[in-house]
Amino acid sequence: MSNSINYSYEQLKHFCTDAFMKFGFSREESDIIVDVLLTSDLYGIESHGMQRLVRYHKGIEKGLIKIDAKPEIVFETPVSAVIEGHDGMGQLLGHKAMKIAIEKAKQTGMAIVTVRNSNHYGIAGYYAKMACKEGLIGMSMTNSEAIMVPTFARKAMLGSNPIAIAMPAEPYDFFFDASTTVVTRGKLEIYNKLNKPLPEGWALDSKGKGSSDASDVLKNIVGKAGGGIVPLGGETEQTGSHKGYGYGMFCEIFTSILSMGLTSNHTHIGGKGGTCHGFIAINPAVFGNADDIREHLSTLLRELREAPKAEGQDRIYTHGEKEVFAYEDRMKNGIDININTVAEMVDLCNYLGMDAIHYLGEDALKLTLARSSYDM
Amino acid sequence: MSNSINYSYEQLKHFCTDAFMKFGFSREESDIIVDVLLTSDLYGIESHGMQRLVRYHKGIEKGLIKIDAKPEIVFETPVSAVIEGHDGMGQLLGHKAMKIAIEKAKQTGMAIVTVRNSNHYGIAGYYAKMACKEGLIGMSMTNSEAIMVPTFARKAMLGSNPIAIAMPAEPYDFFFDASTTVVTRGKLEIYNKLNKPLPEGWALDSKGKGSSDASDVLKNIVGKAGGGIVPLGGETEQTGSHKGYGYGMFCEIFTSILSMGLTSNHTHIGGKGGTCHGFIAINPAVFGNADDIREHLSTLLRELREAPKAEGQDRIYTHGEKEVFAYEDRMKNGIDININTVAEMVDLCNYLGMDAIHYLGEDALKLTLARSSYDM
Repeated sequence: MSNSINYSYEQLKHFCTDAFMKFGFSREESDIIVDVLLTSDLYGIESHGMQRLVRYHKGIEKGLIKIDAKPEIVFETPVSAVIEGHDGMGQLLGHKAMKIAIEKAKQTGMAIVTVRNSNHYGIAGYYAKMACKEGLIGMSMTNSEAIMVPTFARKAMLGSNPIAIAMPAEPYDFFFDASTTVVTRGKLEIYNKLNKPLPEGWALDSKGKGSSDASDVLKNIVGKAGGGIVPLGGETEQTGSHKGYGYGMFCEIFTSILSMGLTSNHTHIGGKGGTCHGFIAINPAVFGNADDIREHLSTLLRELREAPKAEGQDRIYTHGEKEVFAYEDRMKNGIDININTVAEMVDLCNYLGMDAIHYLGEDALKLTLARSSYDM
Repeated sequence: MSNSINYSYEQLKHFCTDAFMKFGFSREESDIIVDVLLTSDLYGIESHGMQRLVRYHKGIEKGLIKIDAKPEIVFETPVSAVIEGHDGMGQLLGHKAMKIAIEKAKQTGMAIVTVRNSNHYGIAGYYAKMACKEGLIGMSMTNSEAIMVPTFARKAMLGSNPIAIAMPAEPYDFFFDASTTVVTRGKLEIYNKLNKPLPEGWALDSKGKGSSDASDVLKNIVGKAGGGIVPLGGETEQTGSHKGYGYGMFCEIFTSILSMGLTSNHTHIGGKGGTCHGFIAINPAVFGNADDIREHLSTLLRELREAPKAEGQDRIYTHGEKEVFAYEDRMKNGIDININTVAEMVDLCNYLGMDAIHYLGEDALKLTLARSSYDM
């Protein structure tokens, strides 16, 4: 029995767009949300696409995400804006904020827009790419529920705090999108499902000691009992723990601090989300000829790909290359959705009164029913 | 026999200022250069202070550093500038560029200034702190001779590419300054001097395989024979190697790419330096009340310091705290200079026709003479 179903991009889009409209979002809003989610699946970042639907569903049900939130610009200059999100959907706030940053950067050369009281906004890179598609350098950051344990601590204080940056280049844009923790929570969940011990240097137990027990670490994170994931650079200063912790702070400055929003250690407490984002757009043309600059970057990226490989390696990647290939492959050959995720999508259909067979096909129902009789 | 001599800040300043004036810099220029170098020693970053004098001496002798270079602004907008450094002294170009960024940011809210064809500029953090002292967020980056081996490569392609950021806070500014490699070359040199094997996950041999042989790695770096230091995050994607490599690229974009200067892999080849820098200044006041924002950051930093400690740890540091204590201690108790460095300073006196006993004391001569009879 296959443990995934292959869907075309169009079919997933049809399902998702109608689902978010059923939740009460407008057609235009649903289109934006769905584009963020499906771009993630198309890039091969399954953790942030269809697999996250259930989290948005729960967020809306619990009232963490307010469908009719009206974002407000509470501070603005020609190079900046601060948006009060009023607990709106993260993707809509992110999209709006980056659009403002792009418009301002086209006028002034560069702009930073921050957002407070938002929710999970999907992949950080989506918004960086929005600017990149307009010929600009784009940056996007978000704080999140505390999960990073700072160097020498035993309590998670910062979020996974991803930093994304994209810049136009040929034949692939430079596109870097990564958490400032050594790995994301999703990785721990995979090890937990497979019942595999965690590699050394990823996570800490409730006393702040290295742990290979994924289940225990995840339980402690949820229960806020101490421990969590270590910064990029690991547990000790010898491997650069303080540097990943520093990049986590970098993210915090451009999200919660410059929006006067909740810092990661105060988000997701007492029925309140409070996630904060930051968006930067920079026009390369304020440094000279934008075409020359793009070519200069393209040359460096090509030299990196063509550099001598380590013994046993046949390829050096530049950031963004893998996503381009994943995108092309999935647009052509469809997107494999894990059967557990399909089951969640079927549940969502039932919850929203949508015809699961119409949207997801007969196999979806058959497989998820077969799955429940085995797995329950 | 002591292996260091303690000097007061004033005495080192007197020696250094006169030395750079002997090289041909003006009084004002010498003051800037010396302030960058001594700030490094005061912060406890010995690798970038007096210990680097010999490198600047060699750079000037070889003609890599041109004392009479006249920097030129080749492109400018209200939020940006690009400076052609004409192979000038890095500290002077860095200081000039950050001053321009600060002035522009005070007018417009934020600014980025890039510099090409410069030289080693000391600690990146110095320039970030310049903006911070003016109430702004400061960032400073520099590329350098290629030393970072990208993930899956066996040749160094990027520099140590430090990124520094400083932002006003009480009682200590946030101040993060770190290479995007797991460690700097200086660390390898220390292990080599001590004849100690390198920790796993720091360096690669000429084939791109992990190496613990500091001497071999350093020899290969100098000879451009392959290998080098791995990115922050280590050698494999499992520990986040691609993330450190991504931050290395981040630095490259804001230095060489946006200045149309030499990328790290093309600097320091054929008698040409070509180092590039990038400076960012952002006025927090374009996001609301600057005092409120400073207090918001100060609160997060305090919460981090007060967070529960890992078992066996009694302190969590926030970035910039160690430098504050080192600065206060060294201003009060003087700066210990390693005897090998003192010997280089004595040599410099002789080279420049300065009276070593007058500037560095009788002990300097005695100890360095004693040292040479033992160490030669």
